[in-house]
Amino acid sequence: MIAETSFFFRLAFGSTNEVHRLMLKTKTNLRIIPLGGQEEVGRNMTVFEYGNDIVILDMGIQFPEEDMPGIDYIIPNISYLKGKEKNIRGVIFSHGHLDHIGAAPILLPKLGYPKIIGRDLTLALVKKRMEDYELNSAENLETIHVKSVDERINLGKFRIGFFNVEHSIMDAVGIIINTPQGTIVHPGDWKMDKNPVDQKPITYNHLSKLPGPKILMLESLGSTDTQPTHVSEKEMYANLEKLISEAAGKVIIGTFSSQIRRIAHIITYAKRIGKKVALDGYSMKSNVEIAKELGYIKIGKEALIHINDVHKYPENKLVIICTGAQGEGNAVLSRIISDEHKFIKIRKNDTIIFSSSVIPGNERTIQRLKDNLYRKCDNVIHSDVMDVHTSGHSNAADIKEIIKQIRPDFFLPVYANHYFLKEATKLAVEAGVSKEKIFVLDNGSIIEFYNGNASVLNRKVETGYVFVDGLGIGDVGEVVLRDRHVLARDGMFVIVAVVDRQTGKVKGSPDIISRGFVYLKESKQLLKETRKKVIEIVDKAAGTGGAVNWSYIKDEIRNKIGSFFYTKTQRRPMILPVVIEV
Amino acid sequence: MIAETSFFFRLAFGSTNEVHRLMLKTKTNLRIIPLGGQEEVGRNMTVFEYGNDIVILDMGIQFPEEDMPGIDYIIPNISYLKGKEKNIRGVIFSHGHLDHIGAAPILLPKLGYPKIIGRDLTLALVKKRMEDYELNSAENLETIHVKSVDERINLGKFRIGFFNVEHSIMDAVGIIINTPQGTIVHPGDWKMDKNPVDQKPITYNHLSKLPGPKILMLESLGSTDTQPTHVSEKEMYANLEKLISEAAGKVIIGTFSSQIRRIAHIITYAKRIGKKVALDGYSMKSNVEIAKELGYIKIGKEALIHINDVHKYPENKLVIICTGAQGEGNAVLSRIISDEHKFIKIRKNDTIIFSSSVIPGNERTIQRLKDNLYRKCDNVIHSDVMDVHTSGHSNAADIKEIIKQIRPDFFLPVYANHYFLKEATKLAVEAGVSKEKIFVLDNGSIIEFYNGNASVLNRKVETGYVFVDGLGIGDVGEVVLRDRHVLARDGMFVIVAVVDRQTGKVKGSPDIISRGFVYLKESKQLLKETRKKVIEIVDKAAGTGGAVNWSYIKDEIRNKIGSFFYTKTQRRPMILPVVIEV
Repeated sequence: MIAETSFFFRLAFGSTNEVHRLMLKTKTNLRIIPLGGQEEVGRNMTVFEYGNDIVILDMGIQFPEEDMPGIDYIIPNISYLKGKEKNIRGVIFSHGHLDHIGAAPILLPKLGYPKIIGRDLTLALVKKRMEDYELNSAENLETIHVKSVDERINLGKFRIGFFNVEHSIMDAVGIIINTPQGTIVHPGDWKMDKNPVDQKPITYNHLSKLPGPKILMLESLGSTDTQPTHVSEKEMYANLEKLISEAAGKVIIGTFSSQIRRIAHIITYAKRIGKKVALDGYSMKSNVEIAKELGYIKIGKEALIHINDVHKYPENKLVIICTGAQGEGNAVLSRIISDEHKFIKIRKNDTIIFSSSVIPGNERTIQRLKDNLYRKCDNVIHSDVMDVHTSGHSNAADIKEIIKQIRPDFFLPVYANHYFLKEATKLAVEAGVSKEKIFVLDNGSIIEFYNGNASVLNRKVETGYVFVDGLGIGDVGEVVLRDRHVLARDGMFVIVAVVDRQTGKVKGSPDIISRGFVYLKESKQLLKETRKKVIEIVDKAAGTGGAVNWSYIKDEIRNKIGSFFYTKTQRRPMILPVVIEV
Repeated sequence: MIAETSFFFRLAFGSTNEVHRLMLKTKTNLRIIPLGGQEEVGRNMTVFEYGNDIVILDMGIQFPEEDMPGIDYIIPNISYLKGKEKNIRGVIFSHGHLDHIGAAPILLPKLGYPKIIGRDLTLALVKKRMEDYELNSAENLETIHVKSVDERINLGKFRIGFFNVEHSIMDAVGIIINTPQGTIVHPGDWKMDKNPVDQKPITYNHLSKLPGPKILMLESLGSTDTQPTHVSEKEMYANLEKLISEAAGKVIIGTFSSQIRRIAHIITYAKRIGKKVALDGYSMKSNVEIAKELGYIKIGKEALIHINDVHKYPENKLVIICTGAQGEGNAVLSRIISDEHKFIKIRKNDTIIFSSSVIPGNERTIQRLKDNLYRKCDNVIHSDVMDVHTSGHSNAADIKEIIKQIRPDFFLPVYANHYFLKEATKLAVEAGVSKEKIFVLDNGSIIEFYNGNASVLNRKVETGYVFVDGLGIGDVGEVVLRDRHVLARDGMFVIVAVVDRQTGKVKGSPDIISRGFVYLKESKQLLKETRKKVIEIVDKAAGTGGAVNWSYIKDEIRNKIGSFFYTKTQRRPMILPVVIEV
């Protein structure tokens, strides 16, 4: 079926028997810890530990949920690695998506810049991310470029190999981690395309020959996706080409900037039919530039034009590829739609294509984007209407298929929410893995392999959220976030009362600052009553003579004004009393 | 095909010729205005106006989006009806879902309690909603109960008829509004079940005989749904019954409280196989109570038990039906899952069924709910795994089918986001409606029909959001909401400086209150520098002698501290300076 033979694998990793002999000699456990990705287990980072050797897979970020206002992103919690920095033999990057490389600029320095390993594009994207975060920081990187999946790299006692996978970004690669206690097979993010462009379908049978016990860690996002096979790249390209060639006006394509192969394909096709392509969006342009420099895509000068120059060409000769298909407020597509783009105006006969999926959580935003687009343009094309995007992920049938091909001894579903992982275990059982050799881990779970047995420890390592907000890393915690929620829900209300030290009476009328609670101009009566109540509270408590308990008075204001507001409005703004003695 | 004949319709509404004669006699336009439902056009409320007669269809609420923190819900903006209250001949309710009746307690009083028209269950749910909102307010209602779809009601010049539709709540009914300028056919929310329980499939051919011009207003949510036909109720019930009968432990079913027929079906089935049912959730219990009182569902006493009594029965004899399948924080299912329910504890061998769809926007919450459930229970069943829910809406094929059956002269797709409506126009053209007789309206659009012609006016009526937040109706506007966003993103920072009137110098150290910005205990250095800067700013500006411009000083504090914070943290908290002269 495939060129890579079991013979090669035996050469590279030794036969099963050899490994078993090796196992008898060692009393060291192999330890695997999914460390990052809060709900999607292990998605952002995984730690492999054997004796004094540590290898890390990926350092990605997670995007914040709606209940995390102001948070830019979340990085893996690396408390477990504290004090173990010297043991880290290398960080392998499976592919260049942000949820796999995005935390590198923060975590690599913290860990003393361990060696990083990956394919060319992946490492180039890591470097770019480093430089964007802090100028010249990429100079600290020590890199091993994986030029071929046949390469083998020794990292302490770990022996690292690779295999081809298909995913929605070039240079995605599957990882083999061979240890004296077993061989981990980890495709990273993957899909199965039965009809790929320019190559034979990838199969994984050869991995079944790896020395046992074989531990398959499998991205299982698609475990409940029982739809028939996804559209192939080929079909998608055919659709895109038809749309581009038949377009009466200009074509605007919104896609992920990491879809470099797709972008290159469109450029090549446009050139062939005599259309010009303009790219827009920072990451879009820089990713294509990186891929060009690496020689991954070949684009003649005549195909690409600068976005400033689109007016020089007839509309029906133009293809614009841009970012923002998720509805990101300041991205190119949003600016085009809201008429804020300097060079692109939408016309009724344009063709606008969403060559992208909807990332969960963005549904409503994208709905609005589409609404606005449909108002301005008669030809809006998205996955609901035509297959103009293919997923980078597998479905339930693919998961069963890959398990059957690899025939693992142990199965650890990863990279998805817990319930998807639980569903994947059902698929694995159907594919022949025995139930007691399947482990659904959490982030922070520690699973140990020893002598062909696996066990999950009772304790977990720390995996609490590490939020990045502006320049702050980890300084926004639960308290700050809780306050943000309260402020968002009902706003806040500051009351400043100046109290005469002599008389214990409030001087003048208390100052009031209210934001997000009620519209002050329309609430004069409420404010008047509030001022009156505050004066009463202070005068009563402070005017009795003796030592004044200001914290008691503040509590009184908070409670009494709080319940007054609730009665009047059924809202609970954050009440902040300031009492100043003069 | 169907018993209801064209003969009957001619009797009820007059033949096409008669109407044409009538049309010649009148110079009055028929006006249709979709008035409520912000993104889903006309979903919450539609106004029909003919001369001095107004008829309203539905008074529903819209649920807030994520970018509307603290908002409870949104009601239709009825500015257009101001001054026209006396013309309102009646409010027809198509069915009892909250997005069609929820605003009744607020809008009916505002409009002087016009007559309300609907089927029994719908009106009972309106009454319940009124009473929940304000005790005894339902006493003001003047109601017309539609006992049969064959009834005809005159409301001014409007003649109202009805037809059967299928939807996910009992007593959903399609509306016919006959006027001298045309006949509106509006199924409300609808679906096509090719294999319904206890009845023949509903067809709409008889509506094609209504006097023209026929104006079809069609809920078109499913216009991009090209999947093969949805699962039928029958199949779904078969699945539910299998799960309930085979369950080794107790069965917990989360569903919408408005799914009264489904709830009744489950109770009846449970009784047949000797299991007991407990209902939990306020709306669940009250809806079933209402349906029982109306005689819509017949449940013997022995089938239902009180939730407090579940401990008296063996686990495998228990079925619990409850609210909260959308992950609502304080609803029953959430409380069960988080072990906060007084009477229900989840066990590994329980069967938990989500007999519900995911409402857009709730995806992530429901994912988390499922994660937690899968941890506690081995048998979690939802639509990804088995058909345990059927949608209440149609798909693209159904939309084409109903158009072909009704053969409208005009087509107005409604009840969905703009882009769905645009896609529905394509379906209508395929179904034979001529393009120039299709109108995609916005909320507030005014379409007029006169002499067989239709035109959309250039002006629109006011439809700005009317937010309900606690007791406030419409008092939270853009300003308050914008403040809530700023507060949520980066928190706020209050600086209180007491200034000596004599010297113009800051007395002591400025007070600082910060919430949602940085964790104060960990930011002492930042606070110290901030205090220093505030003193400098005030001293410099105020200490120069002459009249002090306090608003200038406040601006200075806001700007300088703002950019100081941004440099240090890349965050932009709301800065609120308070300067007090003493």
